[in-house]
Amino acid sequence: MMNSEWNLVEALRHARHDWMNRLQLIKGNMDLGRMDRAKQIIEEIVAESQNESKLSNLKVPKFSEWMLTYNWQTHFIKLEFEVLEAEEPDVNDARLFGWFTGLFSVLENCVKPYEENNMMVTIKICQQEARFELDFNGIIVDKESLQDWLERNSAGVAVETMDSNGFLISLNLNR
Amino acid sequence: MMNSEWNLVEALRHARHDWMNRLQLIKGNMDLGRMDRAKQIIEEIVAESQNESKLSNLKVPKFSEWMLTYNWQTHFIKLEFEVLEAEEPDVNDARLFGWFTGLFSVLENCVKPYEENNMMVTIKICQQEARFELDFNGIIVDKESLQDWLERNSAGVAVETMDSNGFLISLNLNR
Repeated sequence: MMNSEWNLVEALRHARHDWMNRLQLIKGNMDLGRMDRAKQIIEEIVAESQNESKLSNLKVPKFSEWMLTYNWQTHFIKLEFEVLEAEEPDVNDARLFGWFTGLFSVLENCVKPYEENNMMVTIKICQQEARFELDFNGIIVDKESLQDWLERNSAGVAVETMDSNGFLISLNLNR
Repeated sequence: MMNSEWNLVEALRHARHDWMNRLQLIKGNMDLGRMDRAKQIIEEIVAESQNESKLSNLKVPKFSEWMLTYNWQTHFIKLEFEVLEAEEPDVNDARLFGWFTGLFSVLENCVKPYEENNMMVTIKICQQEARFELDFNGIIVDKESLQDWLERNSAGVAVETMDSNGFLISLNLNR
């Protein structure tokens, strides 16, 4: 969970650490003479950064901050995201932040710890709708608590598929 | 000046922008077949990042945040820094922050705009002292205001050299 202890110096430290890892990957491939792989990694990093920029531009500061910093905290779920469209963003930040942090705090307790638990969030905000697709692949050991939470927070939510190996859920916020 | 409008998402946006520029520099050299230069740039970036890490570890959060974000704001002075030693850091953050922000706000109005105005701050914190060397190279058009400020904030300050092309000042904070 995001908390008030997060400060700017700490956040920049985590970002710097991530970038150092990426540089090592580039350097490692260069040292092995794998120039094409090194260039490919750079392309991937640029794409990832453009994605982060798009998220930062959505004008949902609490939600963006939470998304950008999630993996820097100790969690069982690894969060990735992709912003497909971001047209005229005018989404209720508090509602979005509340729903996501609520779901993730429940889900963190429903998954099998130290396993591969990957969440991919796809964001599409256009004039008609703000749509968030949550594609989770991992091991769910407590499906009941998760379903219980989803029933209590079901406005705009559609559960497409769900079993013990993951789910596909969409959240639609009317504009 | 640092201000309350700075938030985490904005800071990460600036950091990301800096990193994108560095990646472009690496990629550009790789595309030209200059592998040694590309590797050298990576080494430089790693050294710079280690420097930023050292600054972040000094336990002077206000001062560190100010130093790390200074160049992301519109200023006539470009700030660089180097942390040589950081032994048992126990420096008065508020005093350090106050002195530096005070000096820089005066200095920004004393230099010739849009010229090369470069400040190099060297930090050495050991058991005996916390020493900050400020090596400024640029064009000073209003030396009087600068000297006036320095006289009014002279505790621990030694002006080694000063002319219209720069100065070397040291600040010593007793431990």
